[in-house]
Amino acid sequence: MFAVTILGNNSAIPTPDRHPTAQVVTYNEQLMLVDCGEGTQMQLTRYKVRRSRIRYIFISHLHGDHYFGLIGLINSMSLLGRTEPLAVYGPPELEEILMMQLRVAATTLRFELHFHALLPEATGLLFRDKDMEVSYFPVKHRIPCYGFSFSMQRRKRRVIPEQARAYEIPSAFYSKLQDGEDYESKTGSIVKNDWVTLPPPRPKRYVYCADSIYDEDLIPYMQDADLVYHETTYLADLHQRAAERYHSTTVQAAGLAARAGAKRLLIGHFSSKYTELQPFLDESRPVFENTDLALEGTTYLL
Amino acid sequence: MFAVTILGNNSAIPTPDRHPTAQVVTYNEQLMLVDCGEGTQMQLTRYKVRRSRIRYIFISHLHGDHYFGLIGLINSMSLLGRTEPLAVYGPPELEEILMMQLRVAATTLRFELHFHALLPEATGLLFRDKDMEVSYFPVKHRIPCYGFSFSMQRRKRRVIPEQARAYEIPSAFYSKLQDGEDYESKTGSIVKNDWVTLPPPRPKRYVYCADSIYDEDLIPYMQDADLVYHETTYLADLHQRAAERYHSTTVQAAGLAARAGAKRLLIGHFSSKYTELQPFLDESRPVFENTDLALEGTTYLL
Repeated sequence: MFAVTILGNNSAIPTPDRHPTAQVVTYNEQLMLVDCGEGTQMQLTRYKVRRSRIRYIFISHLHGDHYFGLIGLINSMSLLGRTEPLAVYGPPELEEILMMQLRVAATTLRFELHFHALLPEATGLLFRDKDMEVSYFPVKHRIPCYGFSFSMQRRKRRVIPEQARAYEIPSAFYSKLQDGEDYESKTGSIVKNDWVTLPPPRPKRYVYCADSIYDEDLIPYMQDADLVYHETTYLADLHQRAAERYHSTTVQAAGLAARAGAKRLLIGHFSSKYTELQPFLDESRPVFENTDLALEGTTYLL
Repeated sequence: MFAVTILGNNSAIPTPDRHPTAQVVTYNEQLMLVDCGEGTQMQLTRYKVRRSRIRYIFISHLHGDHYFGLIGLINSMSLLGRTEPLAVYGPPELEEILMMQLRVAATTLRFELHFHALLPEATGLLFRDKDMEVSYFPVKHRIPCYGFSFSMQRRKRRVIPEQARAYEIPSAFYSKLQDGEDYESKTGSIVKNDWVTLPPPRPKRYVYCADSIYDEDLIPYMQDADLVYHETTYLADLHQRAAERYHSTTVQAAGLAARAGAKRLLIGHFSSKYTELQPFLDESRPVFENTDLALEGTTYLL
């Protein structure tokens, strides 16, 4: 399974019903947390996400609605007896803030916290394991800010059983076929790999664009993604206010998704001035049909 | 009105139903916040407490369940356009943490934040206005920690109308009688103030003991208080664990309240290991009858 669960969809000012940004990316049995606004640890409990399974946390930028809940989550993980290491990726000052908060509380974490500073204006691979690859890219916001791209690792080639049997390839060799090897028969003749296999399915990709002003430079990062999250703090009429505050509107986000050839768009980070969310969809869908609202407690499958 | 509203009654690990410590002390139209665990700003919204009315915030100590929600609240106050100054009292490192969090977000508050550092092991008056007087005292916990005492200002003397009339004191002079002045009649004879007035009612007092190990040194601060809040993180059987972690049990808190001659006791800061709170009452009341559970969303009048 590769999925995104929304824990919060609101911008700056949280309410009891709309929480600041936090998302859980699930792949197989692993969980990754993307941003961690105030109250995220309660949201994890509410939506029965097992915090002990979280191994990686990515913080896009240091506006409070994206990280004020992190120290509380880390603290609780330790109180609950976590021993597995936790990796946190975020702007360098975040480490200083966390360390100070632990120090004044005389807290020694029961697990290793590995902090990885995101370098300003940089881009690149953050980590790769056997299933997943995460990279980051700069996003234009009022302070240094980063988006994240989550890509399943490329799968193995698919054996076409009829073809393999036709060439009398023993099934014990199939796993090597999946790895792309050619087959050499007992008589020395070569069966080319691509005669008997199909290329692996394209690895699915989720792209999280964090908080961003309207920015066409994001298109290459969103290109062909299966799911893109782009903020829509404002409806289209407030495009000027959006630009002033380094945020985006519905029409802008949907336009980028369309131009990038994304498969699906998730919109969120709604300003707390809006009580109804339907207008966000009504404005986005004419520009990019396959748009959904990022709703709290909802899981979106890739 | 003089009252305490509980916004959170849980110890370290919050859940969606039990929040970390935060209380609102209301007197007349003013609000003061006492501790500010994660999610306090959402709790203020949930229980319709107007955050714009909060003028003073007191933070007892720098364990996260008592202050992780402060930066978010301050941030939201500014986003919501607050211009009135805000006074925050807490351990000195708190100022450093707040300032760093504002700095990395490039946030300039729209109001003045006056930070007052609580000095280690000190005690004394924090502020006094025409209605209220707040002082603090040291509490024994794993890190520097303070309790707070909220006392209504002494009221004016009460005129006994029958007596005042008997001495033919004109009613225009009554406000001076309330201030304690004697009355001199036209013939030059003196009517002593205490012949025609009664002493003012004793000023009501709320004492918040924060997180504390069992400590008889608290008794003088609790003495004769109308309402005392004392933590009971654990039930009586876990007194050893309580001591190890610098916390208290039901029987200990109730015992202190009884010895201090307090009028009423509020218990809270329950460990998240307990799902039922009734046993806390069952253990406290035999020791100190007038005990209540600090329940979220409940207001206790003095």
